[in-house]
Amino acid sequence: MSMQIGILGMGRMGKGLAARLLKDGHEVVAWNRTPDAVTEVAKDGAIPAETVEEVAEKLAKPRVVWVMLPSVNKEDPDAPTVTDEMVGKLVGLLDKDDILIDGGNSRWTKSQEHDRLCQEQGVRFLDIGTSGGVLGPRIGYAMMAGGDESAWKHIGPLVDSMTPEGGGGYFGPAGAGHYVKMVHNSIEYGMMQAFGEGMNLLANGHYPDVDLAKVAHVWDAGSIVRSLLSELLAEALDEDPQLKKIGGEVDENGEGRWSAEAALDKQLPYTVNAHAVFQRWNTKQRDEFSNKVLAILRNKFGGHAIEEKK
Amino acid sequence: MSMQIGILGMGRMGKGLAARLLKDGHEVVAWNRTPDAVTEVAKDGAIPAETVEEVAEKLAKPRVVWVMLPSVNKEDPDAPTVTDEMVGKLVGLLDKDDILIDGGNSRWTKSQEHDRLCQEQGVRFLDIGTSGGVLGPRIGYAMMAGGDESAWKHIGPLVDSMTPEGGGGYFGPAGAGHYVKMVHNSIEYGMMQAFGEGMNLLANGHYPDVDLAKVAHVWDAGSIVRSLLSELLAEALDEDPQLKKIGGEVDENGEGRWSAEAALDKQLPYTVNAHAVFQRWNTKQRDEFSNKVLAILRNKFGGHAIEEKK
Repeated sequence: MSMQIGILGMGRMGKGLAARLLKDGHEVVAWNRTPDAVTEVAKDGAIPAETVEEVAEKLAKPRVVWVMLPSVNKEDPDAPTVTDEMVGKLVGLLDKDDILIDGGNSRWTKSQEHDRLCQEQGVRFLDIGTSGGVLGPRIGYAMMAGGDESAWKHIGPLVDSMTPEGGGGYFGPAGAGHYVKMVHNSIEYGMMQAFGEGMNLLANGHYPDVDLAKVAHVWDAGSIVRSLLSELLAEALDEDPQLKKIGGEVDENGEGRWSAEAALDKQLPYTVNAHAVFQRWNTKQRDEFSNKVLAILRNKFGGHAIEEKK
Repeated sequence: MSMQIGILGMGRMGKGLAARLLKDGHEVVAWNRTPDAVTEVAKDGAIPAETVEEVAEKLAKPRVVWVMLPSVNKEDPDAPTVTDEMVGKLVGLLDKDDILIDGGNSRWTKSQEHDRLCQEQGVRFLDIGTSGGVLGPRIGYAMMAGGDESAWKHIGPLVDSMTPEGGGGYFGPAGAGHYVKMVHNSIEYGMMQAFGEGMNLLANGHYPDVDLAKVAHVWDAGSIVRSLLSELLAEALDEDPQLKKIGGEVDENGEGRWSAEAALDKQLPYTVNAHAVFQRWNTKQRDEFSNKVLAILRNKFGGHAIEEKK
């Protein structure tokens, strides 16, 4: 069954979703903060909209609007995000029974707030954590949903077009989708750190001549660690066998941190996955001051040399 | 090309390898410490041998002998393992140019010793870390080899039968194979711990009603954490949605520990993967004494309650 959907945000993810929907014959009304990306998807059959108001006008009721915008505020984690602002704006534009979907990575507590805002206007809210990255357009995206269950059922044909077989699931009330996605990303952090440390031990360990790309290929072929990550690792090492062209600073987008906070709140051990977050910050030298403390204490009690700065 | 091979040890792994070799028309001479398992594989076409000497007699030169026996000594980690003893015995039975393969998980330093023993007699040694578990018989095993390169080339047709496409690799001098396999298993520990902690946060977090099996299936269908582990996790949760029938004590077989030791030796960070090992020990309450120290110190400085034992 072909449906109609408005997508706000034509970044990598928004574009990928639009492509899968258009291929299956759905009608996609596309808007983006900068219009170039809209012009691009319009060539593939999307209906361009210059404003968010125009998106609402072009959709039949009950409208389905998918927000695929940044869900963290890099400058100030406590300030409203682009997604928060868009949800606030949409609640004013949409009508009773319309469906507002946040497909980004908003913190689950934010999704609970967004749901309350929507409920006040009778708008049906869904938080759908969406995973798949650059491979999504080809094989589909995993979708983890929370919020209004009738809305989830309503958008079934859209979800079928965006996900691989069995790749979409509804997990409970508002926030549950983003919570499951948050934990997913946190596990992803842990797995990546496990691979990173292991590959470093091979690159700088007792057999430093080991062919790292070959290792990744052998692992990916039939070992217990075979995974999408081992596949991508093999690809990366084929392109750059010692990763000489890659810098070592690694960003994080909140999910690992929020997962650790959730574990602390529920008093659950979260050793490996929390360390994976700390290690990301280590890549940015945020631990510099603790290193200085160590250096000066070693110097104070043992007379050990310190690196003096001018 | 059909070849001849002797396999010593008809446990889960030895049997799986024999099955793949027999299916491709290779001749397998099978021995086991207890004869029942040999009778079983003999039904599938393997040639049974009652003694290790008989295996040597039944093979044409240059012989290929694959040792698939326990490579850790659970009672005393410093005492010789079953594999060590078998290698010592085989070196006396084999002739110049014969090939002795340790397909188990011996520590890489042991494999260097085994190689020296073999070289003294002109026997060609290979250490081949083998991964695949219960899925190996069906899809093949990943094989990570170190040691005599001419021997690795010689057994090519056997390796092709045991591995999936691209699943076998030679990585350098003796020990390199087991080193790569050791790091593989260490990454596996880290990945498993990441999944374990994440699933625990879902089971006992802010949305405790989330359907865990469904989560695993959705992740496995198209997410970034999709992997053999996510597939097995989905299977396990289908069988027992809350893992009520599973105890929480988790063994470790040395590789995670040896990887951490190797990282310490080379002064490389190994935060997440080392913690995954420590967490395994935590499951066995080996940390009990440190907990007691914490309890009594909290009591001493703050008067906090302690659990008193009789």
